[in-house]
Amino acid sequence: MATPTTQSSAGSDAVTDDPEAVVPPTDDLSDDERALLVDNLRFVLDGRWRAIRDNVREQSNRADLLPDPSLTLDEARARILEVMRELSSNGFASAGFATDHGGTGDVGASITAIEMLGYADLSLMVKAGVQWGLFGGAVENLGTERHHKRYVSDIIDLDLLGCFAMTETGHGSNVQALETTATYDAETQEFVVNSPTPSARKDYIGGAAQHARVAAVFAQLVTTGPGEDAQSYGVHCFVVPIRDDDGNDLPGVTTSDCGYKGGLAGVDNGRIMFDNVRIPAENLLNRYADVAEDGTYSSPIENSNRRFFTMLGTLIRGRVSVAATAGAAGRKALTLATRYGLIRKQFEAPDADDEILVMDYLGHQRKLLPLIAKSYAIACAQNEITAELHEVQSPSGDADAARQRQLESDAAGLKAYSTWHASHAINISREACGGAGYLDENQVSIMRGDIDVFTTFEGDNTVLTQLVAKELLSAYADDVQGLSTTGWVRFIAGMARDVVVEKTAVRQVVQTLLEGSDEDTEKSNLTNRGTQIRLFRNREDHLVRTCAQRLRKALDDENDAFEVFNNAQDHLLKVGQARTERMVLESFIQVINDCDSRAAAQVLGKVCDLFVYSALEADLSWFLMHRHVSVERAKAIRRGVNELCLELRPHARTLVDAFGIPEELLTAPMLEHG
Amino acid sequence: MATPTTQSSAGSDAVTDDPEAVVPPTDDLSDDERALLVDNLRFVLDGRWRAIRDNVREQSNRADLLPDPSLTLDEARARILEVMRELSSNGFASAGFATDHGGTGDVGASITAIEMLGYADLSLMVKAGVQWGLFGGAVENLGTERHHKRYVSDIIDLDLLGCFAMTETGHGSNVQALETTATYDAETQEFVVNSPTPSARKDYIGGAAQHARVAAVFAQLVTTGPGEDAQSYGVHCFVVPIRDDDGNDLPGVTTSDCGYKGGLAGVDNGRIMFDNVRIPAENLLNRYADVAEDGTYSSPIENSNRRFFTMLGTLIRGRVSVAATAGAAGRKALTLATRYGLIRKQFEAPDADDEILVMDYLGHQRKLLPLIAKSYAIACAQNEITAELHEVQSPSGDADAARQRQLESDAAGLKAYSTWHASHAINISREACGGAGYLDENQVSIMRGDIDVFTTFEGDNTVLTQLVAKELLSAYADDVQGLSTTGWVRFIAGMARDVVVEKTAVRQVVQTLLEGSDEDTEKSNLTNRGTQIRLFRNREDHLVRTCAQRLRKALDDENDAFEVFNNAQDHLLKVGQARTERMVLESFIQVINDCDSRAAAQVLGKVCDLFVYSALEADLSWFLMHRHVSVERAKAIRRGVNELCLELRPHARTLVDAFGIPEELLTAPMLEHG
Repeated sequence: MATPTTQSSAGSDAVTDDPEAVVPPTDDLSDDERALLVDNLRFVLDGRWRAIRDNVREQSNRADLLPDPSLTLDEARARILEVMRELSSNGFASAGFATDHGGTGDVGASITAIEMLGYADLSLMVKAGVQWGLFGGAVENLGTERHHKRYVSDIIDLDLLGCFAMTETGHGSNVQALETTATYDAETQEFVVNSPTPSARKDYIGGAAQHARVAAVFAQLVTTGPGEDAQSYGVHCFVVPIRDDDGNDLPGVTTSDCGYKGGLAGVDNGRIMFDNVRIPAENLLNRYADVAEDGTYSSPIENSNRRFFTMLGTLIRGRVSVAATAGAAGRKALTLATRYGLIRKQFEAPDADDEILVMDYLGHQRKLLPLIAKSYAIACAQNEITAELHEVQSPSGDADAARQRQLESDAAGLKAYSTWHASHAINISREACGGAGYLDENQVSIMRGDIDVFTTFEGDNTVLTQLVAKELLSAYADDVQGLSTTGWVRFIAGMARDVVVEKTAVRQVVQTLLEGSDEDTEKSNLTNRGTQIRLFRNREDHLVRTCAQRLRKALDDENDAFEVFNNAQDHLLKVGQARTERMVLESFIQVINDCDSRAAAQVLGKVCDLFVYSALEADLSWFLMHRHVSVERAKAIRRGVNELCLELRPHARTLVDAFGIPEELLTAPMLEHG
Repeated sequence: MATPTTQSSAGSDAVTDDPEAVVPPTDDLSDDERALLVDNLRFVLDGRWRAIRDNVREQSNRADLLPDPSLTLDEARARILEVMRELSSNGFASAGFATDHGGTGDVGASITAIEMLGYADLSLMVKAGVQWGLFGGAVENLGTERHHKRYVSDIIDLDLLGCFAMTETGHGSNVQALETTATYDAETQEFVVNSPTPSARKDYIGGAAQHARVAAVFAQLVTTGPGEDAQSYGVHCFVVPIRDDDGNDLPGVTTSDCGYKGGLAGVDNGRIMFDNVRIPAENLLNRYADVAEDGTYSSPIENSNRRFFTMLGTLIRGRVSVAATAGAAGRKALTLATRYGLIRKQFEAPDADDEILVMDYLGHQRKLLPLIAKSYAIACAQNEITAELHEVQSPSGDADAARQRQLESDAAGLKAYSTWHASHAINISREACGGAGYLDENQVSIMRGDIDVFTTFEGDNTVLTQLVAKELLSAYADDVQGLSTTGWVRFIAGMARDVVVEKTAVRQVVQTLLEGSDEDTEKSNLTNRGTQIRLFRNREDHLVRTCAQRLRKALDDENDAFEVFNNAQDHLLKVGQARTERMVLESFIQVINDCDSRAAAQVLGKVCDLFVYSALEADLSWFLMHRHVSVERAKAIRRGVNELCLELRPHARTLVDAFGIPEELLTAPMLEHG
């Protein structure tokens, strides 16, 4: 840890002092130059799958794709299904499936395309994500050839509508404790799927209320091998038909409707109860486990925990898509609010007849610009995670277990970070648009309702953040997954002291920047990238080290292991947040480093500074308390946010234009009159 | 300002060390004792108008009053109007109007009753607030006998449905710049009401889309006195009929519908355009200004700014009601989330078959308990503001201008503080309920949509917070209201140095506590009330002083006055927040001081500690940066929040039960199975 000096001249932290970072104000740019800058920034933000983005942009530049609040629930659901059929007929879904299953096998393209739907209608994204990502992904990744042959092309074409029946009324986060059972009956070679209790009911399942004909059901597999007692082998996934062609529940299946929700009107969330429903044995998605005719259970992965988490891990695509789409939704809301702020005036300008643009108020800039900066940073990290997932899941990919594990942790962290950001950004955007923001015709209020559940579905954000921390503290050790809280605390306590090491390779650009910066962060300019990385890394390391020490010490003092864990829970959550924010920063820096356009790189540099300064400001008490920044520097950080807002103000429109949101999808009457 | 020592033993800040503050854990209480504790807490929270609260509780304990998301927009609006008619026939609205106008003249009762509607349906509260509070209040407070006689009893009985047409498409916060004109025509003794531009359109007006027959229209009064040129006298209010008995627009009036919104489905927000609509001269609400037959303008208040702000000031009731209702909504969401957290289990308990109640996780406690504590504090401050408004507006009341001015500022601050809190608390409550929280059947998602606009209507929170700061910095000087930003900055610069004084009387209990505490806050225990008050007061004083200095200095340096103001806007907003939070704390302390039950006072003391600790934690970087707390103390504050959460955990149910929300209004299927 750096020991900051308390003396630091205010000047050295002034963000305008860095000659390298001078940005040409937009006012000085010709229209052509500005357009070029927008293009260059968009090129950077679009990332590797930019061709897909342009493709979806072209297809989706239609205001009729926007949510229509006047539709009834049934109409809204039918409408989304209709649009999905249109997408499907345009080949939208093929990328998500392997070529030998009938797809085109481009995972990154698939996720990017889903993300782009977030600019149109979040219901569409969720419904598409359920059908092709979750349900299709379960069949693709947990099934074997017999399932691929039988289902995949129908899933792509929407000839088979499915749902993903994991969550139960009683269990969301704790999937290992699901109550639904699938018991093998050797006599008939069937599994009997059953919901033994009211809390075993499948709940909140997208598609279960109306459209799904089939469900990928997660249930405890129970079987009796020859000469054995019946035994449970943990949660597995089964394809279970739930409705006939007319949409009626099949015998033993009782579906119901979750009804009206806080948003996502176009998604038919529902519930399913199973009363000893019989399915053929072959409906077990048997990539990681199988049951022989005689009831003998077998699996290539002996350890049942590892098997469970391996299966779960293959389903990571949903989480990555949700994070990506939240990013898109946040960008769209910020674009609407920024455009409004650039035409809306209020209160008289001094010595002038006209009133002041609300975007010219520092308070307004401080509301929107730091969120735009964070959106840039998140977009860069998201592109990197999407690309990593593509590599790991592509047939040619290197599916190394450690790399998969790292990806799962990073994706969990980014999902929480990105969806909380989006929820907050949309909320602030709504407020920044005042009454106009509350009218559905201007979209932001609809987005507010739609995004809300993103923070708790596909993994509750608090649980995910904690997961990141637990993985980090236990250094991604094997066999830690699935340990009870107690077991995990004991594991940490038993680890060699200070064994916690950075396992992932430090990327070259970060290494170089670190080497070129002073170890004493206080001595270096705060706009120095190496210093910025150091501050984020030092925070993370400090939190990891002290959290581990705290857990060990508390356990040494013979406290109850759950109590030890629980007393440190806020510390643990902070570890996860700090970790993810550091990862996001480093992704952003990588992207700036790789940017070919000098003007774009300069603007991105300022945006990165604002991201860093406002992230530091948001956590300033921690940095002060743990003496990672001095009081003088803390004050400079607050001033720096203001100065950076002022500097980026002329670029506000450029920054949001670079998101490349199709114009028709930004339809909002408030933008016509201000 | 205190100069904290950096040495402070951790032990001295431990919240459990104070023997005076020991609370009997709920587990030790018998059912009777717990019920009594709930009653005593409720007695405190209910405040002066507790009889009204009980009355509304009794009347509203019906699940059919809850919002029904399955209704169409038209049905939802009709339903709310129907419930209002029921309320009206039960005498609900009489309290808001003076006895000699046909009411019962109990302002405090009126506001309290409206607040209680927030437990049922926020649409109902808003629609009732528009009819009786805003429209009725305009007639009552800006009109004279001829208006009272003609309108008030019809308003109470809903024989006259009105709306409050202040906001325009182009102007919300800056009411002085409204564009609608009302030009006096001496020949016909009429006013001609006109919307000269598209941005002059009245917008977002509750009731304007469908139900209102009459509008209280705010417009620039223009008249030509004998021998004078036509002159504008600023914004005044006029009663303008807008629809006939069949609901058709009257000639020259064009209404339209704002349509679907982020929430408040039962409120028919709409727009109005006036094309030279003629109304009788007597429709000017002429308490503060009149126009003679010959066009001569007269007013008892010569200064046009003061006149305008006096008129606005009488309308404060809406703002107070909105703050109060937001408080109620926040309490309800927290109650639902807390009850869910007390039955919902997730993840296995160590060495036990059962899973852990989510409320037993520190992370979950940290989400909900500090918000409950803040709700307590706000409820106390709200009761005080309501009572003060009652005193100021009651016929027998002392309508001293300074007191009115102070009330306006306090109400503005509390409105912003309370509605931001409610919006945040409902958001967190939704997340704390996971998927269940997103289903409308469990209410929280509906409340989330409904509360959203509370932060920007009846005064945008940012603008209001700034208003509090501006008033405070200019020491409530006359003639500051209505000054342009430039003018205000120049005024501050011209004030005698350090003239900024606390104008309001320090209440006795605060005086006593301050006297009994060490001036050096660092030397005293943090659970000491005097120390708590000092920390809040020192922050406020420090911010006010440095903000004034900063403005003066910047202007001395001959900067542009708007720039000076704008560069300090974040500072100014912080002044307003700190001011309001100090006011809230002192209200809470007063209430605890006055509490008769020792057990209730003990629990309230812990709740107050949690409010203080979490408020300090939320602003810890400021306290550290300005050396109002040491690093050691800062760490003790973080620990203190955890410890207080743990201590209050057994009281969680008691604390929310004490809100006294009618059971039927807490109907939520998620509370049946967990």
